[in-house]
Amino acid sequence: MENSAIITPSELLKHWQGHRNVTRKLIVLFPEKELFEFTIGGMRPFSEMVKEFLAIAVPGLKELVSGENKSFNENHELKTKAQLLEAWDESTVLINELWSQLPQEKFREMNNLFGQYNFPVIDNILYFIDNEIHHRGQGYVYLRALGIEPPFFWERD
Amino acid sequence: MENSAIITPSELLKHWQGHRNVTRKLIVLFPEKELFEFTIGGMRPFSEMVKEFLAIAVPGLKELVSGENKSFNENHELKTKAQLLEAWDESTVLINELWSQLPQEKFREMNNLFGQYNFPVIDNILYFIDNEIHHRGQGYVYLRALGIEPPFFWERD
Repeated sequence: MENSAIITPSELLKHWQGHRNVTRKLIVLFPEKELFEFTIGGMRPFSEMVKEFLAIAVPGLKELVSGENKSFNENHELKTKAQLLEAWDESTVLINELWSQLPQEKFREMNNLFGQYNFPVIDNILYFIDNEIHHRGQGYVYLRALGIEPPFFWERD
Repeated sequence: MENSAIITPSELLKHWQGHRNVTRKLIVLFPEKELFEFTIGGMRPFSEMVKEFLAIAVPGLKELVSGENKSFNENHELKTKAQLLEAWDESTVLINELWSQLPQEKFREMNNLFGQYNFPVIDNILYFIDNEIHHRGQGYVYLRALGIEPPFFWERD
């Protein structure tokens, strides 16, 4: 069993989409104004973190699928919670579509993500997920500081 | 290539230990008093989150290796930063030792973690890592609120 997989691509996709679903719950829970304005310690509002997740997920996967580097799109046009959620849900569908175009052998190839981060594709993808968990954890603090109960971290449905 | 691994056990261990190294940097950066007392929004001080990471990592792996469920040890005896760091470094060594005793085929078996969470072992382990990233992200907000520059999230050495 030395070469058996410990996780398959479809399981990793499900894991990521589960995390993305938790992030979506946070977006919904933030009041409109605080989503775009509330900060602690000079950090970014949660909306800016969400725009970063959007700027990484689909553009990153497009690069992995096509091999073409694009410049980083920071989604400055997203100015309301409804727009963020619409972009989020569009990304959810696109991530599934792009993922299905990633051949299994691709995960171990090197990729210079966004022309800047040269690592194996699996590390690029783990970074997409970890970065979202990391900043979303910061969103949990914002919600708590606003007196709003955040969703359970382990409920991914 | 349908059955090729997208990540190996040793790569996942390196990924986790890299994250644990970032967490260790946060423990070092917190002032002694604030590590045990500073909170935002009624959340736990960062020391309590660190004790949770310690309560999960080695005890969780011991369970995966031995198949024996133990009750959850919350490390109440750790009362200083030095004690936390000592426990952290002991865990770092123990995690490597225990990991080497996890056969590759184990990762896809079901395990009722801490007698409560019945999922495949790979999900148990991803939870160990994700939970640490999540709460450590909260520690980043605490540090920023204290006016302390946290480490780069992507520097794992």
